[in-house]
Amino acid sequence: MTLVNGHPAESVDALDRGLAYGDGVFRTLRTEAGQPLWWRDQYAKLAADCEALMLACPDEALLRTEVCRVAAAGEGVAKIMITRGAGARGYALPVGEACTRIVLSAPLPEHAQAPADITARWCTLRLARQPRLAGIKHLNRLENVLARAEWDDPAIFEGLLCDDSGAVVGGVMSNLVIAKAGELFTPDLGQCGVAGVARTRLLRAMERRGIPLRIGRLLPDAILAADEVMLCNSVIGVRRVGRLDDVTWTPAGWTPILNDALYEDVD
Amino acid sequence: MTLVNGHPAESVDALDRGLAYGDGVFRTLRTEAGQPLWWRDQYAKLAADCEALMLACPDEALLRTEVCRVAAAGEGVAKIMITRGAGARGYALPVGEACTRIVLSAPLPEHAQAPADITARWCTLRLARQPRLAGIKHLNRLENVLARAEWDDPAIFEGLLCDDSGAVVGGVMSNLVIAKAGELFTPDLGQCGVAGVARTRLLRAMERRGIPLRIGRLLPDAILAADEVMLCNSVIGVRRVGRLDDVTWTPAGWTPILNDALYEDVD
Repeated sequence: MTLVNGHPAESVDALDRGLAYGDGVFRTLRTEAGQPLWWRDQYAKLAADCEALMLACPDEALLRTEVCRVAAAGEGVAKIMITRGAGARGYALPVGEACTRIVLSAPLPEHAQAPADITARWCTLRLARQPRLAGIKHLNRLENVLARAEWDDPAIFEGLLCDDSGAVVGGVMSNLVIAKAGELFTPDLGQCGVAGVARTRLLRAMERRGIPLRIGRLLPDAILAADEVMLCNSVIGVRRVGRLDDVTWTPAGWTPILNDALYEDVD
Repeated sequence: MTLVNGHPAESVDALDRGLAYGDGVFRTLRTEAGQPLWWRDQYAKLAADCEALMLACPDEALLRTEVCRVAAAGEGVAKIMITRGAGARGYALPVGEACTRIVLSAPLPEHAQAPADITARWCTLRLARQPRLAGIKHLNRLENVLARAEWDDPAIFEGLLCDDSGAVVGGVMSNLVIAKAGELFTPDLGQCGVAGVARTRLLRAMERRGIPLRIGRLLPDAILAADEVMLCNSVIGVRRVGRLDDVTWTPAGWTPILNDALYEDVD
């Protein structure tokens, strides 16, 4: 089911700026028994991303109600898109506020139902560094599309991306955490990448547990030298990378700890 | 009038990848008496951009027919968008070819009817360098939106952009050409920016006339030191920049020469 501005609909205006320019933001989240998971964090991130792009974020209660309307009875995924709405031709921001909000549901993907270890690969595409858009889950995702198009082996679940300075940023659709010598690290996302809600929850939860995730610049060698490599997002939770191209790891025990932390205060 | 896959329609599928990821390309072109201007160049650029993104470009004759169908009787603007179509959730390319083609018309903007000199400004946003997307007129245009949002003074027609290395790239919606000591220069677009059809036509026409546009790295000082600064695109033609923030220029005579070259073999 899809709601466009609160009404059941299958389509959006052909003049929508979300289509014309990718002028908008989105969220993908899990739903369970018709309710959004981690709603407070999801809405906070949506509101922050809207603010970064000078978009008017819809009211929280309204949006939550719409997510519940589209959500499946069992487990599923909901997607929210907020665009700057239909406007005249041209890049200038339209006068007045007429955002488009799209809320739709999809079945929980198969890979989210069987939480196995992940096989990953390095992507050759390098992410461009744009601090004005870094961290935001906006609708300009051609880099992700091109990176994901680098492989079609269904055994490979995710690709790892570096920026054009050589620093590791994360997965095409996930954030990266590594464990090394008792410490946890996650790439800095001040130049590119998406700062996902699962990563934010882990930052908060592990801080509380006294094993903080340290944010910093990580090079590929640091990933290869890690005791455990993990990828996370709102749909798959935290997953251990068992293989990265020709490198394999045996479990070091961090993935279950981080998954516990991720789910500890379900909102 | 808007055609979606050849049929009159006002909307596109809410699951279209053009909306979800900006996964597509577009063209904006002038129409005169119901016919597209510079069609051969416009279609060649569309096809090249499609190929760069692994999109199936629609047949040329089909697309031209659709542009003529939507075009106004007098002067106007047509816009073509080609997206990767509606697909399942996720970045992976959908199996099979099911692009969406959207062809729509708009009135010729007022500024294109009165070819006055241009007042421009420097934008503070720096374009990120992504060679995989450089030159392509794709649907990921948030940088242009943010740059255009830096001013709302209607007297300012265009903003000039540098990349994050400090090189000048061009205008938010136009390409840049400068004249200095009898030579013509235009920024290299191998790292970012859109290589527009007007620029391509000028490169070809001025080569033929023996005053080639030299492509290279231009710094802001070179713009300020130019004899004449010009901006071009398919809708406005070539326009002289009379003022750039506090700097003004008097005409050096190049703008009419380049406009003649731009229109010399109307296709």
